[in-house]
Amino acid sequence: RIDGDRLWDSLMEMAKIGPGIAGGNNRQTLTDEDAEGRDLFKSWCDEAGLSMGVDKMGTMFMTREGTDPDALPVYVGSHLDTQPTGGKYDGVLGVLGALEAVRSMNDFGIRTKHPIVVVNWANEEGARFAPAMMASGVFAGEIPLEYAYGRKDLEGKTYGAELERIGWKGDEEVGSRKMHAYYELHIEQGPILEAEGKDIGVVTHCQGLWWLEFTLTGREAHTGSTPMEMRVNAGLAMARVLEMVQQVAMSEQPGAVAGVGQMQFSPNSRNVLPGSVVFTVDLRTPSQDKLDRMRAEIERRAAEICEEIGVQCGVEAVGHFDPVTFDETLVGNVRKAAEELGYSHLDIISGAGHDACWAAKVAPATMVMCPCVKGISHNEAEEISKDWATAGAEVLFRAVLETAEI
Amino acid sequence: RIDGDRLWDSLMEMAKIGPGIAGGNNRQTLTDEDAEGRDLFKSWCDEAGLSMGVDKMGTMFMTREGTDPDALPVYVGSHLDTQPTGGKYDGVLGVLGALEAVRSMNDFGIRTKHPIVVVNWANEEGARFAPAMMASGVFAGEIPLEYAYGRKDLEGKTYGAELERIGWKGDEEVGSRKMHAYYELHIEQGPILEAEGKDIGVVTHCQGLWWLEFTLTGREAHTGSTPMEMRVNAGLAMARVLEMVQQVAMSEQPGAVAGVGQMQFSPNSRNVLPGSVVFTVDLRTPSQDKLDRMRAEIERRAAEICEEIGVQCGVEAVGHFDPVTFDETLVGNVRKAAEELGYSHLDIISGAGHDACWAAKVAPATMVMCPCVKGISHNEAEEISKDWATAGAEVLFRAVLETAEI
Ligand SMILES: NC(=O)NCCC(=O)O
Ligand SMILES: NC(=O)NCCC(=O)O
Repeated sequence: RIDGDRLWDSLMEMAKIGPGIAGGNNRQTLTDEDAEGRDLFKSWCDEAGLSMGVDKMGTMFMTREGTDPDALPVYVGSHLDTQPTGGKYDGVLGVLGALEAVRSMNDFGIRTKHPIVVVNWANEEGARFAPAMMASGVFAGEIPLEYAYGRKDLEGKTYGAELERIGWKGDEEVGSRKMHAYYELHIEQGPILEAEGKDIGVVTHCQGLWWLEFTLTGREAHTGSTPMEMRVNAGLAMARVLEMVQQVAMSEQPGAVAGVGQMQFSPNSRNVLPGSVVFTVDLRTPSQDKLDRMRAEIERRAAEICEEIGVQCGVEAVGHFDPVTFDETLVGNVRKAAEELGYSHLDIISGAGHDACWAAKVAPATMVMCPCVKGISHNEAEEISKDWATAGAEVLFRAVLETAEI
Repeated sequence: RIDGDRLWDSLMEMAKIGPGIAGGNNRQTLTDEDAEGRDLFKSWCDEAGLSMGVDKMGTMFMTREGTDPDALPVYVGSHLDTQPTGGKYDGVLGVLGALEAVRSMNDFGIRTKHPIVVVNWANEEGARFAPAMMASGVFAGEIPLEYAYGRKDLEGKTYGAELERIGWKGDEEVGSRKMHAYYELHIEQGPILEAEGKDIGVVTHCQGLWWLEFTLTGREAHTGSTPMEMRVNAGLAMARVLEMVQQVAMSEQPGAVAGVGQMQFSPNSRNVLPGSVVFTVDLRTPSQDKLDRMRAEIERRAAEICEEIGVQCGVEAVGHFDPVTFDETLVGNVRKAAEELGYSHLDIISGAGHDACWAAKVAPATMVMCPCVKGISHNEAEEISKDWATAGAEVLFRAVLETAEI
């Protein structure tokens, strides 16, 4: 069995880096805090005897050798970057849970046939640079490297320049590694496991996603002296698009969500009708049909809404993946591990996107989930118990050993 | 007659300071560019023989002595600060038109009984620090000085600190000056004069205004893994409030406007439902009844909308003035000046707020307006013709002479 206290202590140590304002974390991708978190993680990996490789996207691969020189490694990991007002566990549990698995192997003197690689994927959150899961997307060949390097944050800084700045641009070609399998432990970020009283989520699928970045162009004008009938009001068009997005999602219930998290008015002055309003619609569903239909419907109706007001409507897809079905054998390993360890479990569909979704394109992959309080995530108030973390890491440990072969 | 070429040259010189990105200006209040604009204006005033006083809000008062030591000054001016994507004439025409009047008096050796004071009011736009017309509001005793000093921009910098930083905090008590009268020349910022083919707007009234800053508090949550029915979506509430504001304004037509120019999502990340959405509703009408009714209606219905979604709804008034009626005698002077000079004219109500609205609280006041192309303002594309500017400044010159007494 793994050491739940050691895992928890590491989680709490990492949470000291890039503290948030309400008990959580702000350790966004490619910030100084991200670099500090990477250094701490690397020092732990050094202690555990792992050797490091870093690829050109900044993803960290920490290897524990196997006994068979010809066997491909089993990859286990997640991400250490956070949302601007993120929790202490989203991603971090998956990386440190993988590290704990390796530490436990060391403790017990377990040697595996396949090497184990603990992974910290770069820019999973996509908060600073869209899309999310960017480094694993490049790894899987789904996102071009040059496209990723050119992505900009709200200040106009690029991924490529910021990666160089923090000193974590490695020299490995992205995606050059071959995987035997990929496992990822993650908090659910949804309410189901806690509500059902289950210890472990056996993740069979992941929802597909579109991030549609709308740029609505109206006419900048004085809010006081411009008569209502002369306005080309991009803000009003935005309001109607948001309501429509809500309606589209509600009409596809159950099993579909859509909402808007990012919004920029320009010039963003109280007495100026916005010349442009830029926002991103995030829509997800496990059904490929629904995903395609919702996207088409939202784009069509947004165009209509804007045309009626005279506003120009531009749409760019800044994130996308199709619904994912995880590998049956690996999923079976997770279910069996939970059973053998005496944990209650439930098959679930991941609501959030994860690096495992891209890894699944190039190798058998799956995930282990543990509950989180009230399903709250992407919020500094995100919380889990030590028992939940321990159970998740234990199931991960056992499933990985199954695949890596003792 | 005044020198229209000299006035135009000065306008073009000033427009070189804080250039925008599309032919206009970004010379926001208390920025380095604002300081540079003040220096240029002061150098012109020095050349014209004016003596400077600066008050504790940073307003510049440039005095040309009168012949009667007991006569109170006639104040003439507007503002040199701009919107972030502002035009070259909004405010600037009023200050430089006043300067041109003084320059012309110098050319013709005209002495007036009353001193003439050319004024550059600080923070008229209210773009960086709400409310608009802040320094004239403090001057009129309608806004407390300490409140003004504490107002913050989006980066959290205060008016007081920024005023010290640029070195334009004067030592005059704000409002200690007594005025004989106040005149202000301004572009219309609306479409009426151009559409009616009139040279001069004789401004009889100004619309009243409320700026209502809404803070909608929802629950930060993951956009993918949070089911629709578990969301406390402040962004959705915002969309419904914006649509409602539009409906309220439309139901009070004609003679009422409302809209939203400033919007902040927090944490503003694509995959996080916003924990808070802050935006300001700008509503205006010349009717006191409508103003009161619209404010009450918008606040009541916003509270209902938010309650239905479970979002907390806070409202703070960050700007307000009641409808203004300008001084009959001064309005008559403007009308007479336009007639004597052979300019076509029309009585109009100002759609925008102006420092004249606050000056009217402490002295007889009025305004002269000139057309602007298509009514476009608070937009870098704002445009006027040299003829329009010249006509406006000439009417201003003549009306001021009437009141200042030769
Ligand atoms: N797990 C997680 O929150 N990842 C961020 C990508 C997403 O938006 O789903
Ligand atoms: N004239 C002008 O645009 N002033 C800004 C204050 C307002 O919003 O009316």
